[in-house]
Amino acid sequence: MNYNLLKGKRGIIFGALDEQSIAWKVAERVHEEGGEFVLTNAPIAMRMGEIKKLSIKTNSEIIPADATNLEDLQKLVEGSVSMLGGKIDFVLHSIGMSVNVRKGNSYTAQNYDFTQKGWDVSALSFHKVCQTLHKNDAMNQWGSILALTYIAAQRTFPDYNDMADNKAYLESIARSFGYFLGKEKNVRINTISQSPTPTTAGKGIKGFAGFLSYAEKMSPLGNATGLECANYIVTLFSDLTKKVTMQNLYHDGGFSNSGVTDEVIEKFED
Amino acid sequence: MNYNLLKGKRGIIFGALDEQSIAWKVAERVHEEGGEFVLTNAPIAMRMGEIKKLSIKTNSEIIPADATNLEDLQKLVEGSVSMLGGKIDFVLHSIGMSVNVRKGNSYTAQNYDFTQKGWDVSALSFHKVCQTLHKNDAMNQWGSILALTYIAAQRTFPDYNDMADNKAYLESIARSFGYFLGKEKNVRINTISQSPTPTTAGKGIKGFAGFLSYAEKMSPLGNATGLECANYIVTLFSDLTKKVTMQNLYHDGGFSNSGVTDEVIEKFED
Amino acid sequence: MNYNLLKGKRGIIFGALDEQSIAWKVAERVHEEGGEFVLTNAPIAMRMGEIKKLSIKTNSEIIPADATNLEDLQKLVEGSVSMLGGKIDFVLHSIGMSVNVRKGNSYTAQNYDFTQKGWDVSALSFHKVCQTLHKNDAMNQWGSILALTYIAAQRTFPDYNDMADNKAYLESIARSFGYFLGKEKNVRINTISQSPTPTTAGKGIKGFAGFLSYAEKMSPLGNATGLECANYIVTLFSDLTKKVTMQNLYHDGGFSNSGVTDEVIEKFED
Amino acid sequence: MNYNLLKGKRGIIFGALDEQSIAWKVAERVHEEGGEFVLTNAPIAMRMGEIKKLSIKTNSEIIPADATNLEDLQKLVEGSVSMLGGKIDFVLHSIGMSVNVRKGNSYTAQNYDFTQKGWDVSALSFHKVCQTLHKNDAMNQWGSILALTYIAAQRTFPDYNDMADNKAYLESIARSFGYFLGKEKNVRINTISQSPTPTTAGKGIKGFAGFLSYAEKMSPLGNATGLECANYIVTLFSDLTKKVTMQNLYHDGGFSNSGVTDEVIEKFED
Repeated sequence: MNYNLLKGKRGIIFGALDEQSIAWKVAERVHEEGGEFVLTNAPIAMRMGEIKKLSIKTNSEIIPADATNLEDLQKLVEGSVSMLGGKIDFVLHSIGMSVNVRKGNSYTAQNYDFTQKGWDVSALSFHKVCQTLHKNDAMNQWGSILALTYIAAQRTFPDYNDMADNKAYLESIARSFGYFLGKEKNVRINTISQSPTPTTAGKGIKGFAGFLSYAEKMSPLGNATGLECANYIVTLFSDLTKKVTMQNLYHDGGFSNSGVTDEVIEKFED
Repeated sequence: MNYNLLKGKRGIIFGALDEQSIAWKVAERVHEEGGEFVLTNAPIAMRMGEIKKLSIKTNSEIIPADATNLEDLQKLVEGSVSMLGGKIDFVLHSIGMSVNVRKGNSYTAQNYDFTQKGWDVSALSFHKVCQTLHKNDAMNQWGSILALTYIAAQRTFPDYNDMADNKAYLESIARSFGYFLGKEKNVRINTISQSPTPTTAGKGIKGFAGFLSYAEKMSPLGNATGLECANYIVTLFSDLTKKVTMQNLYHDGGFSNSGVTDEVIEKFED
Repeated sequence: MNYNLLKGKRGIIFGALDEQSIAWKVAERVHEEGGEFVLTNAPIAMRMGEIKKLSIKTNSEIIPADATNLEDLQKLVEGSVSMLGGKIDFVLHSIGMSVNVRKGNSYTAQNYDFTQKGWDVSALSFHKVCQTLHKNDAMNQWGSILALTYIAAQRTFPDYNDMADNKAYLESIARSFGYFLGKEKNVRINTISQSPTPTTAGKGIKGFAGFLSYAEKMSPLGNATGLECANYIVTLFSDLTKKVTMQNLYHDGGFSNSGVTDEVIEKFED
Repeated sequence: MNYNLLKGKRGIIFGALDEQSIAWKVAERVHEEGGEFVLTNAPIAMRMGEIKKLSIKTNSEIIPADATNLEDLQKLVEGSVSMLGGKIDFVLHSIGMSVNVRKGNSYTAQNYDFTQKGWDVSALSFHKVCQTLHKNDAMNQWGSILALTYIAAQRTFPDYNDMADNKAYLESIARSFGYFLGKEKNVRINTISQSPTPTTAGKGIKGFAGFLSYAEKMSPLGNATGLECANYIVTLFSDLTKKVTMQNLYHDGGFSNSGVTDEVIEKFED
């Protein structure tokens, strides 16, 4: 598909790790739609061989940046504006990591140093990105900023652990900063609450396969894929959605508003 | 239990059919807490032998009324004020019925005469009750009006059929009328979104047993019983909750905010 | 703008009354994007001179239909499929009318015949449209059905009257029918909750000017216009949003998630 | 008022600073209702003369504790169980503080050391409290844990600053921990979203007077007072609300579901 929806638009895409990443699909689709962008990821998280492929394919530059580090972010924003030749029209924040999950700590037995690290990476980093853009007056009028989130911010999914609280904080940042960047620069900020997606990150969660199957059966249209998410994101970066802001947008095949489905009930009937 | 929470308060309770009814439990608990009330139900729905027992046990009068009929409601309100010796402090609306469900019509093949009848009985009746109370200036300052609802108003439960839409309408009435009765008379109006409860009405829904088991496993505290609901209602009729209004209050053991539970995921792991 | 987002798609657009109508803007934008459609409106509501202009401009046919009348809807669906040469990809429901508002009845003094008429026109008609499409198997796979709504379905706006309850019912239909059409045909159904828009219908509401100014000041990006709404609708009809379903989507410049703004607070500071 | 609703129950109350504090009112009301408790506050925040008065009046002990400090919390929980003579039935978390607000940093120009400190005090402290209770198995079956929050977690109030994000995180903890403590110990956890209240903390917020007036006019029943909040909390600590969990409960005179009111619109009509 190619509608030229993003022709002439410049952006920054965080979080493309490998071909499974949603951010990877976004980069591919945005490129197809005519957008130009800088790819970025934490130096520690980058798989250079991988992201290099993506940068070649999409004709984009890479600027490594730890999204929790203000100096890195400053360089990223300055560098992006300079490389792209103008202010930024779109930003994708697709970053999340729980140290407690990695270390196998249950939600009720957290190590709070880990909790803070996860919060900084997964949630506060979004504020730092927005604040750096704001401080540098780097966003174009009617630009669009998006962060990826998950419905665990609204309802408990026990294995999602402290990422649930991080996503709640992240979504709140979208509203709070959306107010200020909206008033000052007509920039919109939204979060997309995506179906569970078998990315490298997602696969790390305990019981992910069973959960994926449950989510599939609870979604009248089935789980949304990474590519479908990228398509949706293209519309939200485009000029066709200028007045959508401070929203959490479910892209989930109907999961969020399905109380139960016939396939799920079946499992409880005997 | 008896805390005298409702001593000196007068009310009207709709919908006590038999011992399984939530309204029945409410009548018993309100009586224990010192409240006085009139029992009412549609003449066609009353099981006279049953409700008679309740009226004797709770020392209350019965005034039959079709809640869709304005004349009946006028007589009910006038009669209640007269019998109870003063204006009304609390009202429970516990009425719901879908003709489409009874006749076995699926949601996608409704008979619209049935749809309208179900809407009138299950949803509009609540407006008619409020409007009759308002017109007669029959509510005391800081009175409390409640209607029972279900989470199908927010999320789809396929077998709940057109009752979902009726409950959405009902909850909207609580907000809309809550505004006006709040401003004019300091009366509060709320809905309680209760766990599925094996009442006579509930049992009629297709696949109810499987659904009940699913809901139980999706609720960290388990499904709420009718008696527990009655206890909660007592607090919402009491003077301790005067500033809670225009809310939909989940009384469901945590079902509404559980995305999944370990017991549910288990069923999808093989 | 023209991205060819709807090339080859066929649809039905309800509710284009005159140039102020959102449905009118939608027709114009969908036409620009390559979509073909049938225009429809209630015979009684049609201003033939006006809609004729639109049909010429967009090269589309008109089939009058009272959306509360099943026979009319049957003819409309059959006629549309026949005229357009294939099944339907998109539908816009933009219909609403409160007789109580027209007659000057306050929310607390409704005439219930009027209430029922308004419910039938504004809310149930959406079910009738979906049921007729379903019965005739007239929707293409991955088609998109939208209805326009307003945030009064969630919060009380006193002058919006019984339209609030109608919109709550309408939004519930979107979820309920979205479940079934999703499972059976991969069709998505959503509602768009639009800023107050000075259409012919909107202007009829008491105190609309003051309200419009309030909404403008409460929206960080300002109120969304009809044209902006049409642009948003184009994305939701397109193939880029296939997994968004059963959602109520705010298109309101941020009104829905603004608790207060500086401009609003100012008015209360003296 | 005294209904003996909390007779025989033991608890911990965080955050009673002075007579304006909601926690202060809660202590008084819980005492009247027969509950026994330990008062606690951060050593740095305690106004010893003040809290001493409260402890005498309510016949309760004081255990100072910094709620961000795990050792302090451990001593508090152990000490409380020991002093009260048994496990805990109820806990109130009423703690919040934004260093950015105190230092006059706008939301878009945060000092992230301050942000982290505010998050630790206002949000993470709630997790630390729950985790300490869980680790010590210090809660009784069917106990009730509450935290105070504000609607800024859902909608933006520009002067509320980073407290909005903290409250969103806090509310998420209530859901997440509510799941685990619910399943394991039948303990319920909820948050109360209270009207703006002219406490010592509240008064510090910029433009608070204008905002209070706006909120009053936007609430059909007017703003809820601290005493009214204490009454509501009594019901949520009592045995009458056992199945309410993982909820955010608005106690706000209807503010949350009022889109606008006549008094507010008036200000925009000229």
